[in-house]
Amino acid sequence: MEPNKSAHKKDSAQNDRLWAGRFNQPQDMLFDRLNASLPYDRILAPYDIRGSKVHVGMLGSIGVLDGKEVDVLTSGLDQVLAEYETGAFPGEAGDEDIHMAVERRLTEIVGPVGGKVHTGRSRNDQVALDVQLYLRDATYGHARRALRLMRVLLGRAQADGEMIMPGYTHLQRAQPVLLSHHLLAYVSMLERDVRRFLRWRDSSWMPLGAGALAGVNYALDRELVARELGFERVALNAMDAVAARDAAMEYLATASICAVTLSRMADEVVLWSTQEFGYMTLPDSWSSGSSIMPQKRNPDAAELVRGKAAGFLGREASLAALSKGLPLAYSKDLQEDKLYLFASQRELDMCLDAMGEMMTVAEFHPDRSRSAAEGGYAQATDVADYLVRKGLSFRKAHRISGRLVALAAERGSTLSEMRLEDLRDLSAQFDEQYYDIVKLEAVIAAKVSPGGTSPRRVEEQMLAAEKVIAELEDELPAPA
Amino acid sequence: MEPNKSAHKKDSAQNDRLWAGRFNQPQDMLFDRLNASLPYDRILAPYDIRGSKVHVGMLGSIGVLDGKEVDVLTSGLDQVLAEYETGAFPGEAGDEDIHMAVERRLTEIVGPVGGKVHTGRSRNDQVALDVQLYLRDATYGHARRALRLMRVLLGRAQADGEMIMPGYTHLQRAQPVLLSHHLLAYVSMLERDVRRFLRWRDSSWMPLGAGALAGVNYALDRELVARELGFERVALNAMDAVAARDAAMEYLATASICAVTLSRMADEVVLWSTQEFGYMTLPDSWSSGSSIMPQKRNPDAAELVRGKAAGFLGREASLAALSKGLPLAYSKDLQEDKLYLFASQRELDMCLDAMGEMMTVAEFHPDRSRSAAEGGYAQATDVADYLVRKGLSFRKAHRISGRLVALAAERGSTLSEMRLEDLRDLSAQFDEQYYDIVKLEAVIAAKVSPGGTSPRRVEEQMLAAEKVIAELEDELPAPA
Amino acid sequence: MEPNKSAHKKDSAQNDRLWAGRFNQPQDMLFDRLNASLPYDRILAPYDIRGSKVHVGMLGSIGVLDGKEVDVLTSGLDQVLAEYETGAFPGEAGDEDIHMAVERRLTEIVGPVGGKVHTGRSRNDQVALDVQLYLRDATYGHARRALRLMRVLLGRAQADGEMIMPGYTHLQRAQPVLLSHHLLAYVSMLERDVRRFLRWRDSSWMPLGAGALAGVNYALDRELVARELGFERVALNAMDAVAARDAAMEYLATASICAVTLSRMADEVVLWSTQEFGYMTLPDSWSSGSSIMPQKRNPDAAELVRGKAAGFLGREASLAALSKGLPLAYSKDLQEDKLYLFASQRELDMCLDAMGEMMTVAEFHPDRSRSAAEGGYAQATDVADYLVRKGLSFRKAHRISGRLVALAAERGSTLSEMRLEDLRDLSAQFDEQYYDIVKLEAVIAAKVSPGGTSPRRVEEQMLAAEKVIAELEDELPAPA
Amino acid sequence: MEPNKSAHKKDSAQNDRLWAGRFNQPQDMLFDRLNASLPYDRILAPYDIRGSKVHVGMLGSIGVLDGKEVDVLTSGLDQVLAEYETGAFPGEAGDEDIHMAVERRLTEIVGPVGGKVHTGRSRNDQVALDVQLYLRDATYGHARRALRLMRVLLGRAQADGEMIMPGYTHLQRAQPVLLSHHLLAYVSMLERDVRRFLRWRDSSWMPLGAGALAGVNYALDRELVARELGFERVALNAMDAVAARDAAMEYLATASICAVTLSRMADEVVLWSTQEFGYMTLPDSWSSGSSIMPQKRNPDAAELVRGKAAGFLGREASLAALSKGLPLAYSKDLQEDKLYLFASQRELDMCLDAMGEMMTVAEFHPDRSRSAAEGGYAQATDVADYLVRKGLSFRKAHRISGRLVALAAERGSTLSEMRLEDLRDLSAQFDEQYYDIVKLEAVIAAKVSPGGTSPRRVEEQMLAAEKVIAELEDELPAPA
Repeated sequence: MEPNKSAHKKDSAQNDRLWAGRFNQPQDMLFDRLNASLPYDRILAPYDIRGSKVHVGMLGSIGVLDGKEVDVLTSGLDQVLAEYETGAFPGEAGDEDIHMAVERRLTEIVGPVGGKVHTGRSRNDQVALDVQLYLRDATYGHARRALRLMRVLLGRAQADGEMIMPGYTHLQRAQPVLLSHHLLAYVSMLERDVRRFLRWRDSSWMPLGAGALAGVNYALDRELVARELGFERVALNAMDAVAARDAAMEYLATASICAVTLSRMADEVVLWSTQEFGYMTLPDSWSSGSSIMPQKRNPDAAELVRGKAAGFLGREASLAALSKGLPLAYSKDLQEDKLYLFASQRELDMCLDAMGEMMTVAEFHPDRSRSAAEGGYAQATDVADYLVRKGLSFRKAHRISGRLVALAAERGSTLSEMRLEDLRDLSAQFDEQYYDIVKLEAVIAAKVSPGGTSPRRVEEQMLAAEKVIAELEDELPAPA
Repeated sequence: MEPNKSAHKKDSAQNDRLWAGRFNQPQDMLFDRLNASLPYDRILAPYDIRGSKVHVGMLGSIGVLDGKEVDVLTSGLDQVLAEYETGAFPGEAGDEDIHMAVERRLTEIVGPVGGKVHTGRSRNDQVALDVQLYLRDATYGHARRALRLMRVLLGRAQADGEMIMPGYTHLQRAQPVLLSHHLLAYVSMLERDVRRFLRWRDSSWMPLGAGALAGVNYALDRELVARELGFERVALNAMDAVAARDAAMEYLATASICAVTLSRMADEVVLWSTQEFGYMTLPDSWSSGSSIMPQKRNPDAAELVRGKAAGFLGREASLAALSKGLPLAYSKDLQEDKLYLFASQRELDMCLDAMGEMMTVAEFHPDRSRSAAEGGYAQATDVADYLVRKGLSFRKAHRISGRLVALAAERGSTLSEMRLEDLRDLSAQFDEQYYDIVKLEAVIAAKVSPGGTSPRRVEEQMLAAEKVIAELEDELPAPA
Repeated sequence: MEPNKSAHKKDSAQNDRLWAGRFNQPQDMLFDRLNASLPYDRILAPYDIRGSKVHVGMLGSIGVLDGKEVDVLTSGLDQVLAEYETGAFPGEAGDEDIHMAVERRLTEIVGPVGGKVHTGRSRNDQVALDVQLYLRDATYGHARRALRLMRVLLGRAQADGEMIMPGYTHLQRAQPVLLSHHLLAYVSMLERDVRRFLRWRDSSWMPLGAGALAGVNYALDRELVARELGFERVALNAMDAVAARDAAMEYLATASICAVTLSRMADEVVLWSTQEFGYMTLPDSWSSGSSIMPQKRNPDAAELVRGKAAGFLGREASLAALSKGLPLAYSKDLQEDKLYLFASQRELDMCLDAMGEMMTVAEFHPDRSRSAAEGGYAQATDVADYLVRKGLSFRKAHRISGRLVALAAERGSTLSEMRLEDLRDLSAQFDEQYYDIVKLEAVIAAKVSPGGTSPRRVEEQMLAAEKVIAELEDELPAPA
Repeated sequence: MEPNKSAHKKDSAQNDRLWAGRFNQPQDMLFDRLNASLPYDRILAPYDIRGSKVHVGMLGSIGVLDGKEVDVLTSGLDQVLAEYETGAFPGEAGDEDIHMAVERRLTEIVGPVGGKVHTGRSRNDQVALDVQLYLRDATYGHARRALRLMRVLLGRAQADGEMIMPGYTHLQRAQPVLLSHHLLAYVSMLERDVRRFLRWRDSSWMPLGAGALAGVNYALDRELVARELGFERVALNAMDAVAARDAAMEYLATASICAVTLSRMADEVVLWSTQEFGYMTLPDSWSSGSSIMPQKRNPDAAELVRGKAAGFLGREASLAALSKGLPLAYSKDLQEDKLYLFASQRELDMCLDAMGEMMTVAEFHPDRSRSAAEGGYAQATDVADYLVRKGLSFRKAHRISGRLVALAAERGSTLSEMRLEDLRDLSAQFDEQYYDIVKLEAVIAAKVSPGGTSPRRVEEQMLAAEKVIAELEDELPAPA
């Protein structure tokens, strides 16, 4: 198409619109601009064409199209796809949306028979199908990347996992933990994220064959279509098939939950990269400088991953607000859903990749973290437990341990540095054994409950993670 | 407790706080007020007590408590529960939260041994468990109510389903459908809602035994606890167990999606109850009047169900914003999650119940809806199809049908009322058969694709719905 | 820039980065992609250049640059702007953001002196300024369009305003009103929207001169910069100047509120365009058809305006979630704000324009609306008032009027059609005067309270609206 | 009311409902429960009564009520208010909402004349008025508390302001600043928050007199009502007056923006209270301990303030979603707005108070923060500027400074500790003056631009803040 003819072609395109029968005037340009989805729904082309090919094949199998028609349409659709993939398939100004664009181009290629691709369907069920196929790929893509990130985290847990650091609650040093224990928390969260992505398919029902809302005048073989497109269920009711947005809402929620997981990890990258914490350094390749402050090394990527989580929750709220109170079946409002879906898909993939890379290249600083754990009185719970074993009530033991911490803080000492006579002033129960108890390794080794931070329990967790990652990878189809 | 002594008791309560060892001053009253969760987390008491009983039993089974202690604690907990159920267990001003309140009361009943209930756990994993148990009940309750609503809708579809009405897109009359077809759309949506509620359990992992974040110094039998409390999985990592909020976020999303389903149904109740549509009347018992307009009969309940959907999406956004960027493990911010969860639980139950009642008592008006379908030219697609069968291209047929509608609208006629000579002016292909084609029953019967609105296909849908409802009911445990 | 050299230039561009001193490795490509804001912040170029020119002039006035430097930089910046406006100023792969792109191009044009444009500022205060200028234009643009829409509505109120229609509450016919009364409700809402857009300036404080966060080493004349750029206030504190996002949040909220106003109007266009209501028809130029249903005329534009309101609330929530809990001063998360701001600006302009056009071209149908008002018993309140004047208590009068409506509905009569004897069965107070009372014109004329729907009060409202529109137009600067 | 009679009274209450004329059945209990707003709208009672008194007075002034009626009603309303204030005015089960409850109680007190309070109004405009009055008080209350917090911050800036600390961007140490400079950033943010609260009144238009939506049959003196209730404007259009929610949306947005301001301050309290930062300690009275970790001192209050910001954005999104697409005039959905408004009002007051207290009692640790600034190479920008003054281009100077930082970091030295020969290896321009330049005091003193962190500029800011606080305090009415 020559750009300088677009205005003219536009008008003729409009006069050509399939639904022009009842209309006498062309559409207002502003209306056209408001209405046009082609600028963003082009991304659906491969799904649209794939669905059309299966639809055409099915129409052949039930005798609505003859074999020749099926062949011509199929190879025509293949050509449109090829053109799309090489970038040679631009939309035109007259194309209202990607569905119209594909059908127009198909008809240019194969002639009037191209129109038969639309037999027994409407754009309502067609776009519903496209979106289901798109979202299925999206969830697989996210799952694949999340699994890759889990492998990275597991790898770091195996390689650097003996690093001791303070475990925090309320951002106060709470109890010493192994870095591996901390990293495995994210592995567990991501495992659930992956499972949620995979479970999304349970909400995905094959909509094609619903027509506009009432079904169509052909006894379509919808099960065949579902099978060939890999759906487990057919949407039983035609109106539901075109009107529902629950699978889209579930997708956005699932993506948002995963984005929140990543945002927490990202916040820890930001924190640990501060000079104050100093547990981690990102290399130059994942840091930014400042145009005026020469000393700066900023963890921009982590901040962006953290920030982007805010977009997900907004889009999720938007789709709920969009669908809320809409009468059946289809209303044009719903066209907006694609903006939310496409943005969440694109951004989540990027965030997952970025965290994967950051956690791969990050350098940890065990000396800093160990000394923080030591200085945090993070052994105080174990001191209390030790006094309980000496016969005190937990309540009394807790208090004495609290007073001990207060005393140590006042003196600027660690717990290991406290003298036995000072301990004895607090309680006669203290003895030499105390110095074994407050060793960080001892505190950690004592966390013997399943899921605890003792090396044995962490080892168990790593074996389990290894196994679950492999299982989940097996559930995923190979990337297209 | 006597109210006039509360200020004094408060202080002594504070001095009594378990963690007072390192503290010299009592808490500021404003801080206390900000911090206190007892006003709303009392609702967790039954779950807290149930968890504690299982925890105590497990401690017995691994030898940390002796048999006598287990018995004393168990029957003490039973007594606290009984007091709660009769309303005789009020919180006190000194109780920071429901966990502290239960433990305090338990100790009042059984003496100092009561403190042993807290052996091998912290409030972090304890509240995490309570919330999981609460949400499991919540999802069952929603599923149960949604199934009841599905039965109501199915019943109406069976009883009133032959009513013909316009199916709408863009709120314009599109194609005639059966009321049953329309109602079954909601049955399908609710089916997915129910499945989502049931699937929530896949994200629910038993957290107890995680301690504060690092595990505890006892080799707890967490599998036993999980089994007795009906969990399928144990949270493998202690930090994840206390820090994660994904199951809560998933719950809110799932509730929000269901609330949107209901809001759409509610909007149709509002629309159909207008004098303009007139397809439905709610009885007096589900209508409100006006303090100044004597003629008014307002569908307030439907409006409230529609409106309440807005609260769900806000709470969902809030929890995502709350959790976003929080470093591990627990931060106090997360206490706010309960406000969102409890509100969504309570409101969704109420909305589901209300829709169930409204759809039970509503009266339909088939004459109004039939005449709307007739007047809406909703047969125009079938006229086009008929012309295609006469040999026209769909494109041409669509146009002629469009012109026919324009002509009929101009004359104020229905399609059935058009004269054959006028039809022939539009296309020579029209013949007497046209008058059969444009009968509403014929149009409906022609929608033979699976999931379509033809009586046969609707019958299929009803049988399938009957089956699926029964199956889903079977998956649910009996209500407690 | 030659495209085929971009990969290579990229690397050298990176090595060239101003802040490369402490860095040994180039940035990771994925990091670059995540980080790059140029794809969307190009839109800020005119504001960036305008701010730079004023900054340069100020540096001249305080003697930091000499007159020659000021001239060279100023004309260089003019050239960059000219290139931008003709599309001849593309960003390059090495440009991190629009600020870097402008400075790079400036330096290509004027040589090394170009670097002096950055004297006494950082990108933090520079982008803060750009956004303030952008948002000021955005609010003016919205205000201008909203005023245009107010004029359209006022024009329709003047031209078609005598049309009688039912006023609704709960979507039930409540009391008869004039169409003009209804349209003027939106004029009032839009008036407040416009005032909010204008008030936004009170939250806009000139940030330049804050440097990165601490101020800079020059005694800048910030008041001069503020004056030349049309700000009323200078941000007093440098840290606040770069860190705050409240003006951006207020902008999004203000846009969202206006979008909700439009969504309500849009919903009424959808409703009124139904065959059921039938009060309005949009012409072909603002309607869409269906690819399969020849009779369809869909109000797509109104549906999209309604739907787009959902995007605004999501973006508003996102910016709050993004900023929430961010420590001072600047964090990279905040870069995301521009995505929300730019989308809301673009979409609101489009929605305002679209509503303006729709309300211009819509055709009203007074016969349909009058008969709906008649059939809605919307005079019942006035019947009660009439009985009160006859001496009944309001309570009793309300009941009798309610019974009258019930009787009329049962008989399918309007209130005017009821026979006097039937009235007298309900209350002996009824007399012939009743028939004057229930005339729609009489009911409307009786609403004599200020702001009421009586023609006199509506006339007052129209005069007031005329005046306020003119005043608000005067407050706006001429469009650039 | 005796509780055990409530069920019975309920029925008779229902039969008594004003609008029972057209109704034959009582309302369903579930419907009642869904519908009832009394559980939460009781809080409006004082506003409702105040509005009613002014309404009654106005009805007297225009001759609709006689002087005796006005007196009786006024003193009756005073009695209801007195009962409310002492807690002796409980709602009853039959009261649909607070308006009905007040009118019922009034009628119990003064007899049938009580019904006349409702002359010339409906519940639609009545509740609209109540909410406007409530929100005006809410905004004043927030402004008052925010000003108090500003005073606290200013006081700390004056008392502890010479403390040197690192200013951060990306949570990396950027440039040294004074604590006072940092605290004053929040003073500026809060100033805009206060101005926004005060500006809210521009969106508040007196709605009473709108009736249900069409005005009423009395020539009310609405200006009188507005004047007596302190409104600057009367809502001109009756439909707008009952339907609009923009002032409520603006309120929620304004509260949300302020909550975000507080959340950022709260996040810094959390960060600064960590052992890693160590710039601040909260006293015992504003810290929590742990039930198992004796050493813990958690900044729970700050975490809650930070977390609560998430609720505000959710409620804001909810109200937009609630109002979106609602046709005029009133729909019952809108009743839900009060839940959002009341929660935001209550929570924001609490958060403002809590931050005020925390900032009053916090202890700062200048040694920690000074040494952090020293160790952060935060003087690097000034080193570059110094080299520029020696004749290098900024670009070259920035690089050398960057290399210097890299070298210092490698050696674990501060910038002051570097030897001159090492400096000269990097650039021959370095001389003894370097050691003056890198003094923290010198770096800070050099930030001479207005709004900068140099003591002189900070002094200016404090004087300006003092002035603005006093001015804003003067704009506020005295608390009721």
